[in-house]
Amino acid sequence: MNIVSYRPSPDELSYTFGGRAPVGKVRPGTIIELSTEDCFGGRVRSVDDLPSQVCEFPYLNPVTGPFHVEGAEPGDTIALHFVEIVPARDWAMSTTFPHFGALTTTHTTAMLHPPLEERVWRYDIDLARNVAVYHARNSDFTVELPLDPMHGTVGVAPAANEVRMTITPDAHGGNMDTPELRAGVTVYLGVNVEGGLFSIGDGHARQGHGEVCGTAVEAAMNTVVAVELIKGVATPWPRMEDDLHLMSTGSARPLEDAYRISQHDLVTWSASLTGLDELDAYQLISQAGEAPVGNVCDTNYTMVAKVAKSVLKGPGVYESAHERLRALSAEYLSGR
Amino acid sequence: MNIVSYRPSPDELSYTFGGRAPVGKVRPGTIIELSTEDCFGGRVRSVDDLPSQVCEFPYLNPVTGPFHVEGAEPGDTIALHFVEIVPARDWAMSTTFPHFGALTTTHTTAMLHPPLEERVWRYDIDLARNVAVYHARNSDFTVELPLDPMHGTVGVAPAANEVRMTITPDAHGGNMDTPELRAGVTVYLGVNVEGGLFSIGDGHARQGHGEVCGTAVEAAMNTVVAVELIKGVATPWPRMEDDLHLMSTGSARPLEDAYRISQHDLVTWSASLTGLDELDAYQLISQAGEAPVGNVCDTNYTMVAKVAKSVLKGPGVYESAHERLRALSAEYLSGR
Amino acid sequence: MNIVSYRPSPDELSYTFGGRAPVGKVRPGTIIELSTEDCFGGRVRSVDDLPSQVCEFPYLNPVTGPFHVEGAEPGDTIALHFVEIVPARDWAMSTTFPHFGALTTTHTTAMLHPPLEERVWRYDIDLARNVAVYHARNSDFTVELPLDPMHGTVGVAPAANEVRMTITPDAHGGNMDTPELRAGVTVYLGVNVEGGLFSIGDGHARQGHGEVCGTAVEAAMNTVVAVELIKGVATPWPRMEDDLHLMSTGSARPLEDAYRISQHDLVTWSASLTGLDELDAYQLISQAGEAPVGNVCDTNYTMVAKVAKSVLKGPGVYESAHERLRALSAEYLSGR
Amino acid sequence: MNIVSYRPSPDELSYTFGGRAPVGKVRPGTIIELSTEDCFGGRVRSVDDLPSQVCEFPYLNPVTGPFHVEGAEPGDTIALHFVEIVPARDWAMSTTFPHFGALTTTHTTAMLHPPLEERVWRYDIDLARNVAVYHARNSDFTVELPLDPMHGTVGVAPAANEVRMTITPDAHGGNMDTPELRAGVTVYLGVNVEGGLFSIGDGHARQGHGEVCGTAVEAAMNTVVAVELIKGVATPWPRMEDDLHLMSTGSARPLEDAYRISQHDLVTWSASLTGLDELDAYQLISQAGEAPVGNVCDTNYTMVAKVAKSVLKGPGVYESAHERLRALSAEYLSGR
Repeated sequence: MNIVSYRPSPDELSYTFGGRAPVGKVRPGTIIELSTEDCFGGRVRSVDDLPSQVCEFPYLNPVTGPFHVEGAEPGDTIALHFVEIVPARDWAMSTTFPHFGALTTTHTTAMLHPPLEERVWRYDIDLARNVAVYHARNSDFTVELPLDPMHGTVGVAPAANEVRMTITPDAHGGNMDTPELRAGVTVYLGVNVEGGLFSIGDGHARQGHGEVCGTAVEAAMNTVVAVELIKGVATPWPRMEDDLHLMSTGSARPLEDAYRISQHDLVTWSASLTGLDELDAYQLISQAGEAPVGNVCDTNYTMVAKVAKSVLKGPGVYESAHERLRALSAEYLSGR
Repeated sequence: MNIVSYRPSPDELSYTFGGRAPVGKVRPGTIIELSTEDCFGGRVRSVDDLPSQVCEFPYLNPVTGPFHVEGAEPGDTIALHFVEIVPARDWAMSTTFPHFGALTTTHTTAMLHPPLEERVWRYDIDLARNVAVYHARNSDFTVELPLDPMHGTVGVAPAANEVRMTITPDAHGGNMDTPELRAGVTVYLGVNVEGGLFSIGDGHARQGHGEVCGTAVEAAMNTVVAVELIKGVATPWPRMEDDLHLMSTGSARPLEDAYRISQHDLVTWSASLTGLDELDAYQLISQAGEAPVGNVCDTNYTMVAKVAKSVLKGPGVYESAHERLRALSAEYLSGR
Repeated sequence: MNIVSYRPSPDELSYTFGGRAPVGKVRPGTIIELSTEDCFGGRVRSVDDLPSQVCEFPYLNPVTGPFHVEGAEPGDTIALHFVEIVPARDWAMSTTFPHFGALTTTHTTAMLHPPLEERVWRYDIDLARNVAVYHARNSDFTVELPLDPMHGTVGVAPAANEVRMTITPDAHGGNMDTPELRAGVTVYLGVNVEGGLFSIGDGHARQGHGEVCGTAVEAAMNTVVAVELIKGVATPWPRMEDDLHLMSTGSARPLEDAYRISQHDLVTWSASLTGLDELDAYQLISQAGEAPVGNVCDTNYTMVAKVAKSVLKGPGVYESAHERLRALSAEYLSGR
Repeated sequence: MNIVSYRPSPDELSYTFGGRAPVGKVRPGTIIELSTEDCFGGRVRSVDDLPSQVCEFPYLNPVTGPFHVEGAEPGDTIALHFVEIVPARDWAMSTTFPHFGALTTTHTTAMLHPPLEERVWRYDIDLARNVAVYHARNSDFTVELPLDPMHGTVGVAPAANEVRMTITPDAHGGNMDTPELRAGVTVYLGVNVEGGLFSIGDGHARQGHGEVCGTAVEAAMNTVVAVELIKGVATPWPRMEDDLHLMSTGSARPLEDAYRISQHDLVTWSASLTGLDELDAYQLISQAGEAPVGNVCDTNYTMVAKVAKSVLKGPGVYESAHERLRALSAEYLSGR
């Protein structure tokens, strides 16, 4: 088994997809043990650390990477299987941020209101009990929420020579902020440049649907990913697979366009997998499909379209990459 | 126990919220056994019945009602608890419809494409095995999907003397098309006119998230609802409650506004229930809230914001109407 | 010449399209001299009259009418030519209004901000000099703006037995708030019910594009309209014509859908008038068309699509209703 | 007078903002005579040249540049005055393009329709008579439209180390596609990187509002721009000035957000220029402002907010850069 470890120092972190030389090369079949910083770069540590004061634009939402996948060329697909996503500290942070979030005026939904109060919340992370503990700031209300660790940001270098801030989700992936991106899931990313150049960041100890205030329970993570490459198979928008489901994503504004992209991809993908014509697949997904909300706060919004594989009679996808990565993951975990 | 039965003949059905005299008066505490027609008025019965040919605009999406609730006045809230929703036939229908649905040009998302093909699917409904059976039209693909009966349309007479087609969801309820509206759920509707004048229709044997093709597994239903009235408590947008969750809804375009309305209502409602200030509640819902998609195909789109009562420490809401209606429901069901 | 006068008392005003008996019947070819109140019902008269205090929901945006046009049946079109629109007082009012306008959180674009300050501005109206005088509230800045009187609200009873608040623009017309609706313009409205039942209100001494703060220079008006009926010609969305241009409107959210509706109607209408196929008309409008913004603050947004008749080789439209109404208007004005 | 000429060969053209070394350095006060290719790179020359066949993604919408402005640093503003924009050929092209335009399904407004027909129109450009001649493809309809030459694309290197396709408009400028960007206009662009790195392209012999089919009358141009630098003055979104007006732009989706950004900028800018408080400025722009539509077809939509300087009492802006550039332009033109 080929295992590599990579724990970047702060100055090795990236703030864009594209525009940067790889931090390393990996062969398909590799397992990478890596660490990621939280979206604040670890600078928000107490409720007195206001992000607008301790963070510096555009050095937000750092990602670990990019990694060059050997042999990856435009038109191929990289498969990343999340073996493990574990919060790295016994605390995690969340905040409001001026002009960011779904229930506030923003730079694009521009209004004459002053920004909402900038406020910071510090969560206790208890891995043993699998909970994050919320503490209200203006009362003694406290409640435990189950951990559900995930990565908000994963993607590759964009097409058309673009370089995008990590904060933006689009066809290359990026800051999709979907709770579906948890351990046990394989994400498929279409390759736009030689090596693909994937990066991972923005760990969340857990997240509500839509990340309505703009931030989740933001946590540095120790993460293990297994990497595969599917040659000659293109992927138009990031897709995901777990043991029971297939998923398509879409990131755009307005939110109905994110919904349309993701459902359109799931409908046409399902048609190709089952031999149904597009209208028959449209009907089937209309009754059997789910639509988990990703984010409704970033520069593009993200929706996921999801269907049980059993509904599609368990078709093989991506040359069984998920099954192979599952096996690799099991081997890795048992060998530890 | 006060039980009334109402099985309307076709000419007693309604096609609007508001604008019509009540079909009956009920006292709070009443259980109503009623029947509803499907959204096609029962006219689409085989795959050869194209809705554009057998249905006549605006006589679509009929509802049963309106019912006058004795004592209901503007500023009050009507609580409707769905005791039972049972498909009335051993078949149900779904269709595409010209210029209707999320992945097609519509009358508002107007484009130069000709409409998609109008096609009809007939599902077998097997109550004993609890499944709806999908049959592809252009292949022999068939699959069983679990039943999850619900009502797409429930609402009261609108404010401001308006009369709205049943197809439209808005602050008065209407065609929200959320799968959350199943048996065991209590829906809260703000009263705008004397008696409230609620109606119910558009049963779905099941539905995917967003009802992407524009129709669900459309079924006539035999439904039992228990009615309560909460005096002096206003409800800005329809809310729902089940044994474990509180839910707010929003219906608007673009879809992010439906999300905003529902999340804003859940945040401010949660604040009032817990004593949290708005920003602390915003944070808590951001990490613990869900956002099930209702419809992304009607004249307004619908989103639901949902949180476990346990996260809010199980606050009492609406004078425990849900608990009382649950008890009434249990008494009714055991007495049958 | 058939001339009727109608100056409603306050309790004769209407607050909906549909849902009300006509205030009078007129024959096609009639000239109506009528008066309209401002959108505040005349209750905001000084800068100390806050609309949230002196006005009562839903008694906002009153219209004069409805008028029954003899012989008008569903499938016909009513043509209303604006002969004259003259501010009735030497003052007019504008205000912000809590949760209303384009640069503020609203009931649908729901956010956690408190409302913007409610503030009132009183304009001097000088008909002789043709100006409205703006006075800042928090400085001595003052400036004269040219009068450009128009009606924000004109429409007929909606289809499908609906009744809509006058604040809402849709396919029946309503609160489109487009500065294009000035004297010299003919508006075409598709008839949905016997008699059509048109109403007119919401005069603006002038208005910026989009009515960004939510209100214009709101003025009671003395208005003269000439009425025609075009039998057997349907109109899907309100259209307008002046001596040089044809115009289509669309009202919807998001704003691109209002744009799409209006441009789609102008493209397909132009095709039918010129014999161009749809794609050739699409191309021509793409280079020669204008897109004046109506409102970006109401419950639906409004866009206008506009093209010079000369570009289309001066086609005859609506059986030359505009030309006939122009002649009638000239006869009326010369006879005064 | 410092005059430089630059006529790039095809392989010197750029396809991004950012990500490329400058083609030259210019001092503030320089006049640049430059040529630009059309959005097809000149490859569409007859009605048989379908862009999907003769053009290669992402080599679309080439721009001339980038130019490094000496002394320009982040926080400064570059002023570009368009002295002259002259179509370079006696023909220009327009096309539909699969999945591009306002009245068609696109990659983000994803639907199940096949693309509209791809069709090409060739316009005759007659500089002497100042017209572009439209020829229908499927009939012998032809019409002359007045020339109104403009540049669809102008911008600088983006902030945050981003590199963006030239097709995308955003805060750095880019493909705004507004007809307001004609000769006589000064555009102000906020500097994000050393030298600013501005580029210009996408000439249109004329354009309708919104560029509804996705392309304008696309023309190679001979263009003269005069360059100035305003030190220490930041510009959040591109602004424009002509002899009579000030203009702000916004580019976003949905279209109301483009409207909000542009109106918000014009309101707050007007407040700072006049001493009005924000609410008084909001009121004044609400009555006196215009809102010319830019594009409703690109990856972001663009709106312009516009007000006559006289309404604001003719305030000085950007240290009178427009007046100085006007004088320089006059001197240049008279010296030719």
